[in-house]
Amino acid sequence: MASKLTSREADYSKWYNELVVQADLAQHSDVKGCMVIKPYGFAIWERMKDVLDQMFKDTGHVNAYFPLFIPKSYLSQEADHVEGFAKECAVVTHYRLKNAEDGSGVVVDPDAKLEEELIVRPTSETIIWKTYKNWIQSYRDLPLLVNQWANVVRWEMRTRLFLRTTEFLWQEGHTAHETSEEAVAEARKMLDVYADFAEGWMAMPVLKGIKTANERFAGALDTYCIEAMMQDGKALQAGTSHFLGQNFARAFDVKFATRDGGQELVWATSWGVSTRLMGALIMTHSDDAGLVLPPKLAPIEVVLVPIYKGEDQMAEIVTALNGIAGDLKAAGIRVKVDDDDTKRSGWKFAEYELKGVPVRLAMGPRDFAGGTIEVARRDTQTKEIIDAAGIVQHVKELLDTIQQSLFDRAAKRTKETTTRVDSWEEFLAALDAGGFVEAHWDGTPETEDLIKQETKATIRCIPLTENHESGVCIRTGAPSEQRVVFARAY
Amino acid sequence: MASKLTSREADYSKWYNELVVQADLAQHSDVKGCMVIKPYGFAIWERMKDVLDQMFKDTGHVNAYFPLFIPKSYLSQEADHVEGFAKECAVVTHYRLKNAEDGSGVVVDPDAKLEEELIVRPTSETIIWKTYKNWIQSYRDLPLLVNQWANVVRWEMRTRLFLRTTEFLWQEGHTAHETSEEAVAEARKMLDVYADFAEGWMAMPVLKGIKTANERFAGALDTYCIEAMMQDGKALQAGTSHFLGQNFARAFDVKFATRDGGQELVWATSWGVSTRLMGALIMTHSDDAGLVLPPKLAPIEVVLVPIYKGEDQMAEIVTALNGIAGDLKAAGIRVKVDDDDTKRSGWKFAEYELKGVPVRLAMGPRDFAGGTIEVARRDTQTKEIIDAAGIVQHVKELLDTIQQSLFDRAAKRTKETTTRVDSWEEFLAALDAGGFVEAHWDGTPETEDLIKQETKATIRCIPLTENHESGVCIRTGAPSEQRVVFARAY
Repeated sequence: MASKLTSREADYSKWYNELVVQADLAQHSDVKGCMVIKPYGFAIWERMKDVLDQMFKDTGHVNAYFPLFIPKSYLSQEADHVEGFAKECAVVTHYRLKNAEDGSGVVVDPDAKLEEELIVRPTSETIIWKTYKNWIQSYRDLPLLVNQWANVVRWEMRTRLFLRTTEFLWQEGHTAHETSEEAVAEARKMLDVYADFAEGWMAMPVLKGIKTANERFAGALDTYCIEAMMQDGKALQAGTSHFLGQNFARAFDVKFATRDGGQELVWATSWGVSTRLMGALIMTHSDDAGLVLPPKLAPIEVVLVPIYKGEDQMAEIVTALNGIAGDLKAAGIRVKVDDDDTKRSGWKFAEYELKGVPVRLAMGPRDFAGGTIEVARRDTQTKEIIDAAGIVQHVKELLDTIQQSLFDRAAKRTKETTTRVDSWEEFLAALDAGGFVEAHWDGTPETEDLIKQETKATIRCIPLTENHESGVCIRTGAPSEQRVVFARAY
Repeated sequence: MASKLTSREADYSKWYNELVVQADLAQHSDVKGCMVIKPYGFAIWERMKDVLDQMFKDTGHVNAYFPLFIPKSYLSQEADHVEGFAKECAVVTHYRLKNAEDGSGVVVDPDAKLEEELIVRPTSETIIWKTYKNWIQSYRDLPLLVNQWANVVRWEMRTRLFLRTTEFLWQEGHTAHETSEEAVAEARKMLDVYADFAEGWMAMPVLKGIKTANERFAGALDTYCIEAMMQDGKALQAGTSHFLGQNFARAFDVKFATRDGGQELVWATSWGVSTRLMGALIMTHSDDAGLVLPPKLAPIEVVLVPIYKGEDQMAEIVTALNGIAGDLKAAGIRVKVDDDDTKRSGWKFAEYELKGVPVRLAMGPRDFAGGTIEVARRDTQTKEIIDAAGIVQHVKELLDTIQQSLFDRAAKRTKETTTRVDSWEEFLAALDAGGFVEAHWDGTPETEDLIKQETKATIRCIPLTENHESGVCIRTGAPSEQRVVFARAY
């Protein structure tokens, strides 16, 4: 088992890095910036993927798969896109290796140089819209609602496991529509899907908003986002949904025959969430003892640990626990009985605490004799002894309670750390205290840049609420129509 | 809708290429050798993936994810592996683009050259065993049973959709064991899983066997395989499972503390199937009218088509069909009601025939009045009118019948085209007729190569049966202990 974690208070960043590795979620690979997602971490990502995939299908989307490689020239086709995006990419220039003449290994074969370099996809708008040109002729082909689960690569100089890696896993939805209104509605709908997932499954409250021009996706007319607040007072962008207007349709000449016999460029959206959500999940709930997982996404919701001396006790207690595990499984709960005789129960308790299993059931000889069982909650680190006969119903309710309680705790923290300020001094103090800061801004990219330079805070979003309220910009004093939300961010 | 397909008899290869595109399964992309898997094709692959993934989990495996990129030097570490494998690869040499000085677009930034080139994984043994070195210290860490779903790239000069593409999707299992026996048992177990999937789900009979040294995976001691026979008399390797001995453990220095306190190199397997299975599925069952899908893998098992004149008839018939569809869904059957009023029922019939939907239900005004429904089977292209009241039970049984019937038909064909020969003349004639050819071979790579040069036939496998039988090699007359299976192959 792992050594003790650094505490969050001592060093939040170190705590996170240690936790990801010690809880067996992921590790750095020898390939700079690329991570290995370990089986336990991948099992959580698989749960997320399965749930999101069903949500996408329930909203009418289908999956497809597009090439990993994008011809270099495609990136130049949409001017804003290449400007904002295409620079830090992995570039494939050759397609063959050969044996080194000195026998030292393999070298790149200079004769196998590609005529046009290929880019490993950093996102797939260009290759997908190039393909959509052949898929879309008429309004009858619309809407086209396609999603892809894929790996993407963005060359990063400074990486952190899950939060920022050169290669990451994600889904990218790419939809095509007849009208601007329909495309905007789609972008908003998918934002809602992301928010529902974040709050309903990850137990992570999010703020829905729209990005400023500075923070918009390269090639988008509008970028919608969900923003979450981590325990250290820094914000994390957890998902984005873009209204792309006709930009990519124009770049790749994708027109459709309209209902009234005309020809028009197609309207587009794209939207994505990635393995970054793993980082958000970890940082929202976990504590100094390790990972804390919401039951709905936990690969193991309940672990059952026998406590015994000698083989006879072990046999009868393990048999009893297997019976309970069977009943829990039949109730649709993901369980594990840890009857490994080579490890002490104390070791197991620490291990499952570190790994964030929401509920631990332990049974010792006294419980066995008395028909009781010990129930421990990971989130509150509390224990109680209950009658073993009612365990299934008790655990079911407890898992629901934990799921709700994690959300409530995170929502309370987010609310308590959100500050409304009206002066520059208040603004600086609020930023240093951490959390979301609601402030007036004069609406110019210049002021936004200035504030970012001076404070490292960015505008996380313009909230999607109708609370328009006049005021003056905290930095310039110029008039403002609505508060925006600032924070320092991941 | 698509134009009429070329018939299999006229040009099998052209028939296949047309079918894949017209049935909306996949298409070529502008990136040489890379395909786009379209939503309908991807839905079939998703079914395959879901079923296989569950079979892997049921046999104790867990999923993980390893980097896309492999440092060039890793490939040289296992001598046979690099010799047999590493040459035709996509090579990443740079990590940044920049704007061209003449404003013509983007160019590769020469300052962003990688110190060591990265290879886009053609398979992941090297990077995974490099990682396993840190995961395995003791026998307590074994067995390690990990699978990965991923994209891989092998630069191919001549590509065909699904059968041979530069990028393809696959799963690769990589397991680590204490003993040679355990690793061999694992490789055999996964071969059985693949065979069960091929026969039980794809309705595709397969021959289980072992590859000759010539055809072995680069770095393996033994390669087990399943081989299937396509309708044109050519064989297709549908899955492989490798016993890797201690080769990769040796190359990456992965040792474990044994039960008796020693240190030993770990024993390994790897095993994989890919989107190539899509090609096998298509070529095993489909006919001149289009795709034929086994019900267990069909995204839509039953399509319901209303036949009507006018809105009133449409309303009542669609309502009736929706009711039946609801009952079928409740019985766990994947259904679609096609009530698109802009398309004629004849068009729909042809479309679902092309797409291989196993069962079509049609209801016209006379059926509606009389309480009957027309049931059409895709595989036999037969129709019958039945009492609508018993439809759910009828369809359930029919789907089972179709699944079995597809398997039986393919098994019959495979058996009928398998020939046992004892002379060179018989051998040549049998190859030209198509199918598996069981013949004696002297066991040398030289004779195997010679036969391949002269006939384009390869030894598909040495069957995993105990039917040892003495004879003489069809080519050299040298003694032989067992018949092997030859065929021309994809």
